[in-house]
Amino acid sequence: MSERPDGRFLVSSGAPWEPLVGYSRAVRVGDRVWVAGTTAAGPDGRAAGGCAGDAAEQTREALRRVEAALGAAGARLADVVRTRLLVTDISRWEEVGRAHGEFFAAVRPAATMVQVSALIDPTLLVEVEAEAVVGSGAPVARSTPAPGRTP
Amino acid sequence: MSERPDGRFLVSSGAPWEPLVGYSRAVRVGDRVWVAGTTAAGPDGRAAGGCAGDAAEQTREALRRVEAALGAAGARLADVVRTRLLVTDISRWEEVGRAHGEFFAAVRPAATMVQVSALIDPTLLVEVEAEAVVGSGAPVARSTPAPGRTP
Amino acid sequence: MSERPDGRFLVSSGAPWEPLVGYSRAVRVGDRVWVAGTTAAGPDGRAAGGCAGDAAEQTREALRRVEAALGAAGARLADVVRTRLLVTDISRWEEVGRAHGEFFAAVRPAATMVQVSALIDPTLLVEVEAEAVVGSGAPVARSTPAPGRTP
Repeated sequence: MSERPDGRFLVSSGAPWEPLVGYSRAVRVGDRVWVAGTTAAGPDGRAAGGCAGDAAEQTREALRRVEAALGAAGARLADVVRTRLLVTDISRWEEVGRAHGEFFAAVRPAATMVQVSALIDPTLLVEVEAEAVVGSGAPVARSTPAPGRTP
Repeated sequence: MSERPDGRFLVSSGAPWEPLVGYSRAVRVGDRVWVAGTTAAGPDGRAAGGCAGDAAEQTREALRRVEAALGAAGARLADVVRTRLLVTDISRWEEVGRAHGEFFAAVRPAATMVQVSALIDPTLLVEVEAEAVVGSGAPVARSTPAPGRTP
Repeated sequence: MSERPDGRFLVSSGAPWEPLVGYSRAVRVGDRVWVAGTTAAGPDGRAAGGCAGDAAEQTREALRRVEAALGAAGARLADVVRTRLLVTDISRWEEVGRAHGEFFAAVRPAATMVQVSALIDPTLLVEVEAEAVVGSGAPVARSTPAPGRTP
């Protein structure tokens, strides 16, 4: 996307307050892409129709937007190295985790899930951040299982 | 800053507990800089004078400290690719967002804002993390707006 | 670990739900390693024996797991550039901070500590994320102290 090795490529969120707050949906520099915290919010800032009250569907919608932002930056879901799932009710971690697995079963980024006390609107249940390295999508090796646990 | 490609350059916070906790205000390796969570705390750990109860001013003060840390590491605000705004009252997101915009309107990092349940001192309203790529400061291209929203 | 410059090396957590959720304990691409949010949980998801109710010991156990994951990816604690400490009771920050210092006194990553409202199980008090650059472990320079504070 970028014509220069050091240049940056910005993916806009399209939100009306983006110029005011000064942010992008995603930034690419070289082969690295950072995707902003992404939710299933509609134009009014509330959970988009079909997603209200549904943590799994909000996760899917947020990940579809992450995928679109990565695509605009020349990256794919397969290139994602880290995700961060910020949820408002971690007792529903299985719903959110399964939705994450629908997108990342073969990719397996380093993922974190924690419960925050609020997202930008009370109807939002999940916010997702992602980081990617363009072209890293093909797994070459896996370790044997080691102790530890984080859904 | 670093004389060797693989070496690291550490920017101290100057806090008395820094050696005990084992952290830096910022770390640079190659062209990458990571800035620790930064607040508007004074030497006593509480919000510095002039910032008490003012989320926007705490954001500005934190960002001035982020800018100073970046400068010590040879980077500029224009090089920032990601910010993370951890706030204690997200209903004040516009105040915090506008203060972020004062620093980043032309930079537009991938930004996330979430409400955490507490920062290190109850008088602190905002903590800011940043990540930068030295020399990436000149935008070369922008996408057309895409769906999605995160102030 | 990776045989190809662009390939990724995945470190498994060994958790039974890992394939379902689609995540790894750690991902390495080139010289970069991202470690997932890591706790002191045992196989049943609750704080492992000896760690229950002890924030410092949970921090140590999480960091031992982070160290093991880094090792599986060919990295060391000395290569860590950023840590993030997500705690459920920040009034105990000194306990957690001192345990962090036991591992990182000489490394001094850019660290952040915030209180989240819940981790995946109520017995868990600390979750740790880390990011490393392989081979960056030898400090070459340090700045003079600058203003700012984040334990």
